[in-house]
Amino acid sequence: MSTRGLFISFEGIDGSGKSTQVGLLADHLRARGREVVVTREPGGSAGAEEIRALVLQGDPDRWSAETELLLFTAARRDHLERLIRPALAAGKIVICDRFADSTRMYQGLSRGDLRATVDQLHDLMIGVEPDLTLLIDMDPAAGLARAKARKGIEERFEDFGTDLQTAMRAGFLALAQEFADRFTVIDGARTVEAVTADVVAAVDRKLT
Amino acid sequence: MSTRGLFISFEGIDGSGKSTQVGLLADHLRARGREVVVTREPGGSAGAEEIRALVLQGDPDRWSAETELLLFTAARRDHLERLIRPALAAGKIVICDRFADSTRMYQGLSRGDLRATVDQLHDLMIGVEPDLTLLIDMDPAAGLARAKARKGIEERFEDFGTDLQTAMRAGFLALAQEFADRFTVIDGARTVEAVTADVVAAVDRKLT
Ligand SMILES: Nc1ncnc2c1ncn2[C@@H]1O[C@H](COP(=O)(O)OP(=O)(O)O)[C@@H](O)[C@H]1O
Ligand SMILES: Nc1ncnc2c1ncn2[C@@H]1O[C@H](COP(=O)(O)OP(=O)(O)O)[C@@H](O)[C@H]1O
Ligand SMILES: [Mg+2]
Ligand SMILES: [Mg+2]
Repeated sequence: MSTRGLFISFEGIDGSGKSTQVGLLADHLRARGREVVVTREPGGSAGAEEIRALVLQGDPDRWSAETELLLFTAARRDHLERLIRPALAAGKIVICDRFADSTRMYQGLSRGDLRATVDQLHDLMIGVEPDLTLLIDMDPAAGLARAKARKGIEERFEDFGTDLQTAMRAGFLALAQEFADRFTVIDGARTVEAVTADVVAAVDRKLT
Repeated sequence: MSTRGLFISFEGIDGSGKSTQVGLLADHLRARGREVVVTREPGGSAGAEEIRALVLQGDPDRWSAETELLLFTAARRDHLERLIRPALAAGKIVICDRFADSTRMYQGLSRGDLRATVDQLHDLMIGVEPDLTLLIDMDPAAGLARAKARKGIEERFEDFGTDLQTAMRAGFLALAQEFADRFTVIDGARTVEAVTADVVAAVDRKLT
C-alpha cells in the first residue's frame, strides 16, 4: 500500500448515500492502518464552516448565484489551505463529502448558467482536483425519499424537486465522462454493503 | 447638468480624509438637487456588511490573502448588484468610500503579491470601474496621526505602520497613472475646505 496522501471526493445527488459511504470508507481504511481525515464541503475548516453558515442560512434569494459562487470558492480555498493540503502533505488520506464537482453542478447548472465562470474561478483560485472522485449514482426519486427521511435546517439545496434532481443526476454523469481519469461511477441503488464493496475496490485500485 | 447616474469612488491611505470628503461632496450635490447614494467598501449592502464583519473581526491570520480576496470580491459583487447598479440605473450619483482600487492596493500589494490575481478576479466577477476616482493624496505620517486620533475596533488594516503606508501612497499614485482616464489626484494635506473645493471641481467637470 502506498504511503503518499490520497485525496478522495464523493459526489452525487442528495440521499444517494455519500455521507454513509464516507464514514464506512474511513472505517475500512483506518482498520487497514491508514491515517484518514474525513471532511465535507461546503465547510470543512473553521473559517469555511463560518462561510457555509453565512451562505446556507436565511432567505434563499439573499445571495445571487455569482456571490454564492464566490463565497463557496472562498470557503474552498480556506478548506484547502488549512486542512486538505496539510493532511495530504503528511501522507494522510483525505475523504471529502462533496468538492468542486458539486459547485460545477449546483452553481454551474442549477443556480445559474455559470459553468464557464465556475471553471475560470476554479482555475484561478483553487486549481486542485481530487485523485479519485466516487460518484454515487442513483434514481433521484429513490434518493429524494431517503433524503426526506432525514431532518435538517439546511434544506435550500434539497428543495429543488425531482425534475431538477434528474437534471443533476445527468449532470454528474456528464462530469464523470468529462473527467473520466479521476471519476468512478458506482450504482447507489443497492444495499449499503454492496455499494461499500465497490467504493473500497475503487480506492484500493488507487492505493496499490 | 447631466441626469445620468455617476459612479464616484474615493481612495487614499487611512486618515487622508476620504470619509470626510465623501460626506461633504454628498452635501454639495444634494444641495444642487441631485439624488446621491453614499456607500462604502468593504460593505455597503446588507450581505456585504456581513461578509465585511466576517473578514475584519478576529485574528489577523484567520484568512489567507487569497481567501480574503475572495471574500471581499463576494462582498463587492453583492454591493454592486444590490445597491450600486440599481442606483446608477435610477440616475443617482453613487459615492463610494473605497472600491476596487483599495483591493488592488491591500490584497494586491500589502497582503500578498496578488495583483495579477486581483485583476483576473475583478475582470471575471466585477468588471466595473468608477466613472471618477478621487485619490486623496498625502504624507502617510500626517495621515496616520489623523487616523490614530479616531477610535475603532476594525484596526487590522490601519496597523501597518509608516513604511507600509509610504508604499501604499506610492501604490495609489501608480494606480492613478495606470488608470489616468478616471483618476484625479487631490492634495489632501490642506484644510478640509481647500480639499472639498478640488473634489467638487473634479466632479462638476464630469457632470457638465
Ligand atoms: N444503500 C442504501 N440503501 C438504503 N438506504 C441508504 C443507503 N445509503 C444510505 N441510505 C440512507 O439514505 C439516507 C441518505 O443517505 P446519506 O448517506 O445521508 O446520503 P447523502 O449524504 O448522499 O445525502 C440516510 O438515511 C441513509 O441512512
Ligand atoms: N483636511 C483635513 N485637515 C485636518 N484634518 C482632517 C482633514 N480631513 C479629515 N481630517 C480629520 O482626519 C481624520 C481622518 O479623516 P477621515 O475622513 O476619517 O479619513 P479616512 O476616511 O481617509 O481614513 C478625521 O478625524 C478627520 O476629521
Ligand atoms: Mg450527506
Ligand atoms: Mg474612512
